[in-house]
Amino acid sequence: MNRWPVKTAELLALVRSRRPMIHHITNTVVTNFTANVTLCLGAAPVMASCRAEVEEMVAMAGCLLLNIGTLDEAQVESMHLAGRRANALGIPVVLDPVGAGATRLRTQAAESLLREVRVSVLRGNAGEILTLAGEGGKVRGVDSQEQAGPRDAVLRAFSARAGLTVAVTGEVDLITDGKRTFRVSNGHPRMGQVTGTGCAATTVVAGFLAVHPEDPAVASACALAAFGLAGELAAMTAQGPGGFVPQLLDSLAALDDKALRQGVRLEVT
Amino acid sequence: MNRWPVKTAELLALVRSRRPMIHHITNTVVTNFTANVTLCLGAAPVMASCRAEVEEMVAMAGCLLLNIGTLDEAQVESMHLAGRRANALGIPVVLDPVGAGATRLRTQAAESLLREVRVSVLRGNAGEILTLAGEGGKVRGVDSQEQAGPRDAVLRAFSARAGLTVAVTGEVDLITDGKRTFRVSNGHPRMGQVTGTGCAATTVVAGFLAVHPEDPAVASACALAAFGLAGELAAMTAQGPGGFVPQLLDSLAALDDKALRQGVRLEVT
Amino acid sequence: MNRWPVKTAELLALVRSRRPMIHHITNTVVTNFTANVTLCLGAAPVMASCRAEVEEMVAMAGCLLLNIGTLDEAQVESMHLAGRRANALGIPVVLDPVGAGATRLRTQAAESLLREVRVSVLRGNAGEILTLAGEGGKVRGVDSQEQAGPRDAVLRAFSARAGLTVAVTGEVDLITDGKRTFRVSNGHPRMGQVTGTGCAATTVVAGFLAVHPEDPAVASACALAAFGLAGELAAMTAQGPGGFVPQLLDSLAALDDKALRQGVRLEVT
Repeated sequence: MNRWPVKTAELLALVRSRRPMIHHITNTVVTNFTANVTLCLGAAPVMASCRAEVEEMVAMAGCLLLNIGTLDEAQVESMHLAGRRANALGIPVVLDPVGAGATRLRTQAAESLLREVRVSVLRGNAGEILTLAGEGGKVRGVDSQEQAGPRDAVLRAFSARAGLTVAVTGEVDLITDGKRTFRVSNGHPRMGQVTGTGCAATTVVAGFLAVHPEDPAVASACALAAFGLAGELAAMTAQGPGGFVPQLLDSLAALDDKALRQGVRLEVT
Repeated sequence: MNRWPVKTAELLALVRSRRPMIHHITNTVVTNFTANVTLCLGAAPVMASCRAEVEEMVAMAGCLLLNIGTLDEAQVESMHLAGRRANALGIPVVLDPVGAGATRLRTQAAESLLREVRVSVLRGNAGEILTLAGEGGKVRGVDSQEQAGPRDAVLRAFSARAGLTVAVTGEVDLITDGKRTFRVSNGHPRMGQVTGTGCAATTVVAGFLAVHPEDPAVASACALAAFGLAGELAAMTAQGPGGFVPQLLDSLAALDDKALRQGVRLEVT
Repeated sequence: MNRWPVKTAELLALVRSRRPMIHHITNTVVTNFTANVTLCLGAAPVMASCRAEVEEMVAMAGCLLLNIGTLDEAQVESMHLAGRRANALGIPVVLDPVGAGATRLRTQAAESLLREVRVSVLRGNAGEILTLAGEGGKVRGVDSQEQAGPRDAVLRAFSARAGLTVAVTGEVDLITDGKRTFRVSNGHPRMGQVTGTGCAATTVVAGFLAVHPEDPAVASACALAAFGLAGELAAMTAQGPGGFVPQLLDSLAALDDKALRQGVRLEVT
């Protein structure tokens, strides 16, 4: 068992033993699915968006996850409050900039969060991340239109400039902290045929980050490898996209060292 | 293969090849399910309700879907803004008046949308549609209590007066544009045993309308035939209402020309 | 067939024949799941939270369910309006104080609802209920950290003092109206591995209460026995937590007298 499958298994075991609470401020499309992803990962979900409680709630969390998929002004304000409190308490923050580049509201919300909250990991698709990197990715609605994915150098430069780990998911996931670039080739096309798998990937990143905050790039890369592998295993038995969703949850809950040892495809350059 | 199965297959193929974006402003109960229905149909969902972005988002859409199932004042305002922008851009609009007749808020929201936005298709159950037609349908909560469904002549007159296509789903779906009435006898009782199948029917109508805006009645009738057939096929393998939901998504994603040729039951008078 | 299995079967039959409408003002994580639970139970769900309509909507309901899982100020205000209207009309009210004890907002919202609305049944986990009983339960996020569950005497005293039925779910469910204590030992650990089963238990309580408002403790105990049994049956076939969710819905819809006679484990002291 080489280094990365071992590391992935170690971090997953830590999530399962410590059961960190993942505080989600997220969109209304994926609340149920990502709560179940959190549970199947072995962590504990809480969804709380009200300005009056987010600062108190986040203090109990192992990680704060901000997802702007169905944002409004009140929710973005809560994200800022929770994010700053998480920063003050040393709790890592993950941002999923859903639809950045599609509307000004989304782009600006993501930019203002990146400016005012210290984000550990920014997880998005190529179009969203390139928009935020100032490279003008093409985004239609909440889908990226980027086929090939951004080049490594652009992401490294953005990561170094912004001082955060950037995780771009796609056919191959690229994760960089400005120094190293990790490539994860786990995953399955079926994951693009159901809603919320991107958001769920962010949830898994948040879980791994909660137990390994000292190296966000490694936490993110191992998380995406584990989640991608769960997707591959689920696709082996699911008959279609509908049945794939419960199967993905089952595969995630059932991931073990043997499956990770055989299945994780993660390399660093 | 007679005319309507062929037409249904043609329109479904167009949805799959063009992958139109369906902008949903919808209720919080069905966001996940209808996003997955959109994907399984072959289209691309986006859910965006914030006043500050709906006009920008709808400009990228092939169809705008308005569903008042968990409305509030802010959301209805967003529906008006998006609806008027869609009208200005020539993007078709579908309205699902969930619970019209049950509360004044819902009836008035649907009426104001019909008054101020040019709606291509109004898709509801008998009670909702009769309420909006001024015929005083009986609505309890979000269920229609109409057993037999409204008579053809009432719907035709309402459709002609309102200048839109009316699609009433029930044991037999009736779709009329004031001149022709289409009857779809596809569907299965199981579809009434899970939440959101009415909302999902509206999503399928929106997908077909996006690729065939020039004849909303034909688009709606073919959409409801395809969706009803997917329901029939799903009911053949599902053991109960819980398993029916993922199976319905699978059946929708797997619909092919052969199934449509054998299964579509659609006639026009 | 001894007394409680018979009673459970009787009440379930009443739900299925009368099909009461359950008006939910609930959290955005479980709307879809609890709507389907309501349908699979044989009742009719409606989700409506807007201040402008809740008083009108609740008038049609057989039971009002208030769940503070993703509360905000506007929603809590709607809960008060709907609750007071339900009281005026003699419609029973169930409160699920999700996360009471985790944040002041949640504790205070639950307390203000208990103070100003006549609640028939308060259904929560041990930490939430002990918080509201003034016993300082340990709550982290929306999970109770109480392992053993509160002692019987504490719950009875709280129930008598507050004038409502208290239902604490856990490995063994305890239900008391201050005079009698019911113990339900149905259920399965799998139910704790997916999101929303607590909220769904409250939905089943609401359904039973709608047809048996004269004895909320019996209605609640029978409801929790039926739901726990559905969970046991679902766990027998589900491969994991993902597949468990649709299976739970199927098992609930399929519950019959024979299964209840063999499976209900409910006793009173």
